[in-house]
Amino acid sequence: MEKSRLEAFSDGVLAIAITLLIIEVRVPHAAQGELWNEMLASWPHFAAYAVSFVIIGIIWVNHHGLMLLVERADRPLLFFNLLLLMFIVVIPFSTALLADYIRAGDNAEIAAAFYSLTMLCTALAFQALWRWITRAGGALRSPLDPATKRATMVRFGAGVVAYLGTVAFSFVSPIGTLGAHLLIALYYVFDQLTVRTPA
Amino acid sequence: MEKSRLEAFSDGVLAIAITLLIIEVRVPHAAQGELWNEMLASWPHFAAYAVSFVIIGIIWVNHHGLMLLVERADRPLLFFNLLLLMFIVVIPFSTALLADYIRAGDNAEIAAAFYSLTMLCTALAFQALWRWITRAGGALRSPLDPATKRATMVRFGAGVVAYLGTVAFSFVSPIGTLGAHLLIALYYVFDQLTVRTPA
Amino acid sequence: MEKSRLEAFSDGVLAIAITLLIIEVRVPHAAQGELWNEMLASWPHFAAYAVSFVIIGIIWVNHHGLMLLVERADRPLLFFNLLLLMFIVVIPFSTALLADYIRAGDNAEIAAAFYSLTMLCTALAFQALWRWITRAGGALRSPLDPATKRATMVRFGAGVVAYLGTVAFSFVSPIGTLGAHLLIALYYVFDQLTVRTPA
Amino acid sequence: MEKSRLEAFSDGVLAIAITLLIIEVRVPHAAQGELWNEMLASWPHFAAYAVSFVIIGIIWVNHHGLMLLVERADRPLLFFNLLLLMFIVVIPFSTALLADYIRAGDNAEIAAAFYSLTMLCTALAFQALWRWITRAGGALRSPLDPATKRATMVRFGAGVVAYLGTVAFSFVSPIGTLGAHLLIALYYVFDQLTVRTPA
Repeated sequence: MEKSRLEAFSDGVLAIAITLLIIEVRVPHAAQGELWNEMLASWPHFAAYAVSFVIIGIIWVNHHGLMLLVERADRPLLFFNLLLLMFIVVIPFSTALLADYIRAGDNAEIAAAFYSLTMLCTALAFQALWRWITRAGGALRSPLDPATKRATMVRFGAGVVAYLGTVAFSFVSPIGTLGAHLLIALYYVFDQLTVRTPA
Repeated sequence: MEKSRLEAFSDGVLAIAITLLIIEVRVPHAAQGELWNEMLASWPHFAAYAVSFVIIGIIWVNHHGLMLLVERADRPLLFFNLLLLMFIVVIPFSTALLADYIRAGDNAEIAAAFYSLTMLCTALAFQALWRWITRAGGALRSPLDPATKRATMVRFGAGVVAYLGTVAFSFVSPIGTLGAHLLIALYYVFDQLTVRTPA
Repeated sequence: MEKSRLEAFSDGVLAIAITLLIIEVRVPHAAQGELWNEMLASWPHFAAYAVSFVIIGIIWVNHHGLMLLVERADRPLLFFNLLLLMFIVVIPFSTALLADYIRAGDNAEIAAAFYSLTMLCTALAFQALWRWITRAGGALRSPLDPATKRATMVRFGAGVVAYLGTVAFSFVSPIGTLGAHLLIALYYVFDQLTVRTPA
Repeated sequence: MEKSRLEAFSDGVLAIAITLLIIEVRVPHAAQGELWNEMLASWPHFAAYAVSFVIIGIIWVNHHGLMLLVERADRPLLFFNLLLLMFIVVIPFSTALLADYIRAGDNAEIAAAFYSLTMLCTALAFQALWRWITRAGGALRSPLDPATKRATMVRFGAGVVAYLGTVAFSFVSPIGTLGAHLLIALYYVFDQLTVRTPA
């Protein structure tokens, strides 16, 4: 398969998933003179929207970087990519779940854990895709030098550990978990801004 | 018409249809402490989401494979393609219908049959598109060798028979029908991974 | 502006508008054993979905044919194109309105008239875009021969008259009006299949 | 990163955001014979739809013009672009908020101010993206001549001032604020039609 159509389809799904995030931010019902307070009370929806937007944005940047390494898409690559997209598309649901329940006692913990689990699965699927692409005899344009490969493995591994940590932390502080996801996302933004990989 | 714009439009519709699947997975209403149980009780929505996601994903892979054979899109091809897309776009509706009613007695049978019927119509439309493209004097880049053509016809014919079977099976076991669709989809995934067609 | 990005954006909007049609087809609420009857009673939603899908599909085919004539997109062309898209995006709303009210007495007439008006505005915007592109000194790749130009003007003029007719007919028979839109759409499909314009 | 994939992703998000505007225009509930009056009473939804559609349309035209200047997308450019998209995706929410509350006394002022704030943030993010691209040593294809650069800065600065004005004006007249946004948008349309920048 030509790589270009794989990219076009993935870009389409990512663009729709990132835009659907706003559908889950509902216009609040407010009594006369109460809209300002209702908007303030909706802060979890705005915060969760922003965090998930940054996360999907980073996935898009990383996905593009990964595709730049690929010479030609084989069939397993298509299905690893579909698996990744299957978890990414769940993010708007998880975001709405977290925003709806983040102040709801015990339920908040479940919602935060589900949100963290979605990110964990996404990270694992991304790693599977990366491993398939960079495996020996794979579909790379040119072999990765071992140092870069090892460094990327460490960065991805750290991500998986971090997301595992957020699953556990969900049962301590759901609001803190949302903050942790923001920090992880910002870390990846700055990491992207400084790393010396091509493109 | 240039094939590229046909592919771009089809990719767009497929990407949106596959992403809209998540809109139909609603955030459950849960009393205090009940979110975990409510999420478990929502399993038909997650299961139907996953099955339909795999099905649309395979359609996308197959659609791309078919388009690789095409030299240039003529007008009937455009309309056969639109017919195929018209059934694919119904899949998010059928998925929501099945998930909502799968445990609802008699209604479950109707919902499973409608879901199966959607897949049957999609398979028939795909076959019509394939026949138009591979007909004698058609728009192929290079003629298919007869053995490949016959093998593909058999695979497609088997799909139509299998989907007909799921329509009938819907009245026996709606939950089993969802499982059958998963099995058919996984069969196509593995078929794709082993088949020796170009790309 | 490069024509390619204009096409990509238009394809995106058309692909989303055509797919959003299904969002307006709601899963019916059915008492035990009543789903089959409820689905049958939902026929206006399925019928309106199919008619609007064919209409947007034809607009896409025609839009592509028109863009083939264009050498380079100037700024007014961009805004005529946005005007066209602004009416096309209303089609999912008009479709839901018609399906919801088609059996609702006096309200059905208003809904059918609004649906017809949407199509009339779309046709007029398409014609404005066409006139801008094919005007003397315009952005054509190569001048249209006068006979083709005249024939297209007649076909477009006929469409405007037909849609005006459906606005009036809405007050006679709302269900008949939906049928009329299907007939107009099918006429354009067969017209496209026989016409001898390039592509 | 290749510019083309950045454009494809941005076009996707813009196309989806502009199309989602119609989802927020709900089919009104009308008693027998009352649909016409209900449609008239829904005018804020239609007006807000049209204004926001024109605004997003202009952003798309401007975004394309800006990308034409770019030689190659570096990482900060990707994130400035994501920031811009993050505010644009909020526009369908702000549009629905304004349409729902525009006749609701005090709440109308809050809704209009939030809508205006969304536009202000969008304008600021656009300006940040523009400054990054046109900075000394940036990613321009060819240096901008100082006169063009200064003229663009003035036009953008005027936009920021105008949007600041609409935030303040929201507390005087919410309906007038929607009108002001229409006037600003139309000004940019005519500005685009007369300006002599490339493309």
